[in-house]
Amino acid sequence: MDTHVVIMAGGIGSRLWPASTPEMPKQFIDVLGVGKSLIQMTVDRFLRVSGIGNFWVVTSERYVDTVKEQLPDIPAEHILAEPEPRNTAPCIAYACRKIAMRHPDANVIVTPSDAVVADTEAFSSAMGKALAFTSSSASIVTVGIVPDRPETGYGYVCASGKESGKVVKVLAFKEKPDRKTAETYLSEGNYFWNAGIFVWNVKTIEEQLRMHAPGIYGVIDAMSPSFYTEKEKEVLSEHFKECEKVSIDYAVMEKSDDIYVISGEFGWSDLGSWSAVKDHMVTDADGNAVVGDRVVLSECRNCIVHASGPVAVEGLDGYVVAEKNGKMLVCRLSEEQRVKEFSGMLGQ
Amino acid sequence: MDTHVVIMAGGIGSRLWPASTPEMPKQFIDVLGVGKSLIQMTVDRFLRVSGIGNFWVVTSERYVDTVKEQLPDIPAEHILAEPEPRNTAPCIAYACRKIAMRHPDANVIVTPSDAVVADTEAFSSAMGKALAFTSSSASIVTVGIVPDRPETGYGYVCASGKESGKVVKVLAFKEKPDRKTAETYLSEGNYFWNAGIFVWNVKTIEEQLRMHAPGIYGVIDAMSPSFYTEKEKEVLSEHFKECEKVSIDYAVMEKSDDIYVISGEFGWSDLGSWSAVKDHMVTDADGNAVVGDRVVLSECRNCIVHASGPVAVEGLDGYVVAEKNGKMLVCRLSEEQRVKEFSGMLGQ
Repeated sequence: MDTHVVIMAGGIGSRLWPASTPEMPKQFIDVLGVGKSLIQMTVDRFLRVSGIGNFWVVTSERYVDTVKEQLPDIPAEHILAEPEPRNTAPCIAYACRKIAMRHPDANVIVTPSDAVVADTEAFSSAMGKALAFTSSSASIVTVGIVPDRPETGYGYVCASGKESGKVVKVLAFKEKPDRKTAETYLSEGNYFWNAGIFVWNVKTIEEQLRMHAPGIYGVIDAMSPSFYTEKEKEVLSEHFKECEKVSIDYAVMEKSDDIYVISGEFGWSDLGSWSAVKDHMVTDADGNAVVGDRVVLSECRNCIVHASGPVAVEGLDGYVVAEKNGKMLVCRLSEEQRVKEFSGMLGQ
Repeated sequence: MDTHVVIMAGGIGSRLWPASTPEMPKQFIDVLGVGKSLIQMTVDRFLRVSGIGNFWVVTSERYVDTVKEQLPDIPAEHILAEPEPRNTAPCIAYACRKIAMRHPDANVIVTPSDAVVADTEAFSSAMGKALAFTSSSASIVTVGIVPDRPETGYGYVCASGKESGKVVKVLAFKEKPDRKTAETYLSEGNYFWNAGIFVWNVKTIEEQLRMHAPGIYGVIDAMSPSFYTEKEKEVLSEHFKECEKVSIDYAVMEKSDDIYVISGEFGWSDLGSWSAVKDHMVTDADGNAVVGDRVVLSECRNCIVHASGPVAVEGLDGYVVAEKNGKMLVCRLSEEQRVKEFSGMLGQ
C-alpha cells in the first residue's frame, strides 16, 4: 500500500497570540512545552502509517524555510508553497495532483498541522482502517471526533451509526451549529466533530474534484504540465489565484454521497484557544499549566502561563499570561475569545 | 555664588523590575512615560540653581557611557566612576574632593538621581534658601519632605520646628521607624522624610568628613594627588575599596550637631515602588496609568501598565503589569513589596 500524508500548514493561528503570530504561527511553535512544534508532533503521529519520504507539506511561501528547518527529512520537493491562501480545496487539489502524477495508486491522508492527539494508538488504528477501506473502494473516509461538549466552533459529521472504531456511512456534513443544535447533536450520539482529516485514494479525490469542483480541477489541469519542472513556481504564481477560494468541505464533502467516517475520542484537540491548550497540559496542584523554564508563579490558580521569560506572575485565578518577543497578553480565560480582537487592535 | 550639583547615580533600582534592571536601572529609564529618564529630569530640576558645566555625576563604571549619552552637556571629566559601590559616604567624599581641588569655595548640592519633584517652583525656592544659608555658614542643610503617611521605608529628620520653607535646626536623624513610631512622627509634625538631598559648602563637608569619618577622609587624601591626572583611574581602582562602606547619614549626619533642614511637600517621590510610580502619573477614568504606546486595556481598573508592547491586558483590578525586553511582571499592587523577591528568584 502506497500511503502518502499531506500536511496543511498555511494557517496563522491568531487565537494563540502572542505565542502564535503571522511571522511564526501556531503549527511551528512548541505550544505544549514538550520540545516539539505542533507540525513536528503531527509528523511523528503519522510516521506509524507512512515513511517520511511520502510526507508532503503545503504551506505559504513565507513558511517554506521554517518547514525545511523543522522537518529536514521530508524531501524538499514535497514542500509545496501556495502563492496565496485559497482555503483548503485548491491546496488539496494541488497536492493530490502532484502525488497522482508520480504515484497514481497512492492512498492519501490529508491533515491539519496544528491539532494534537493524546491517544495515538487508537488514532493510528483508525487511520489503518480508513486506509484499508479507501484502498479497496472509491470512497472518502473522514475522521470524526466524539464530542464531549456542545461545541459551536466546529462543523459536525452526521453518521449512520454511533459506533466508534468502525468505518460507517456519512449522512450529512453540518456547518457550525448554534448552541441548541449542538446540544441536540451531543445527545443524538451519531454526530461527530469534523477534524478536517480525510483519507482517500488519489484517483477518488481527482474524480470527486472533477465532478464537484470543475473550476478548480480545470485550473490544476491547466497548470499541471509545469509540475516538477522549473516553470512550476512561475505558473503557480500566475494561475493558482484563479482557483475559487473554498473549503474542501464545501467543494466536495457536502456534495458527494460516497463518504464514510471513522470516529473516536483520540484525546484530539485543535488547540484553538488558550483554554484548550491548558486542558491538554499537565497542571500543578493549583491547576496552573506552565510552558517556559523561567517562570515564577505565586498565589496563582487555574492559569496558563506561556512565556520564554523571565516572567513573574502573582495573584491571578483563571487567566492566560503569554509572552513572546516582548509581545504580551494577560486575559481572563473566560474572555479568551477576545484575544483575536486584542491582537487586531495592536496591529498584530 | 559658585554652585555645583552632584548627582548620585549608582543604584540598581530593583523594585521596579523588569522596567529597571541592573543593565539599565531606574534612573536611566523613562519611568513616567514623559520622554525623559529620571536622571534627565533630575538635571532639568537643578538647572534653575546652576549651569550644566557645574554638574557632576557619580556612578559605576558600567553606567558611564549611558550617562554620557543621556547627559551629553555635562563635562566628561565631571562624570566620576566608582570602581565599586561603597554606599554614599565614600561617593560623596570623592566627588566633593574633586570639586574642592578646583573650586575651593563651591557650594554643593548632593542629590539622588532617581526621585521626582512635582512642585519644582517650591523646590527651587528651597534650594535657593539652603544655598544662601550654606554659603554664609559652616552648616549642612538637608531637605525634609513633609510626610503624608506613616511611611516605614524612609529615614526621618527630627526638626526644631514644624514650619515649611524655612531653614531650621535638626535635632536628630532617625532611622527607618516601625509603624507605630512612624504614626507618632506623622502626628508630631516636626518629623520629615530624609530625601537624601544635602547642601553644604565644600569646605564644610571636608571638615565634617575629617572629624567624623577620618578613615574615608584619609583614603581620599591619599588618592587625591592622582585626581585630574592620568593615574586617577588606576589609583581609584586600587584604593577606593579601602573606604568604609557606609552611608553619609551614618558617617556624618547622625554625628554632626550643626545640621539644618528645609522642609516642604514638593510633590516629591523616590518612585520606590510601582504604586509610587502610579501615584505620580495621570490616570484614565478607570484609574489606570499607562506607559507605552502599544497597550490595549480592557475591563481594567486601578492598574499600572508599563511596557514597550505590544501588550493586551484584560480583566485586572489593582495590578502592575510591566514588560521590558521580554521580561515580564504581573503582580497585585498590594503585594508589590515582593517584586524584588521575584526578580531574585528569576536570577535577575
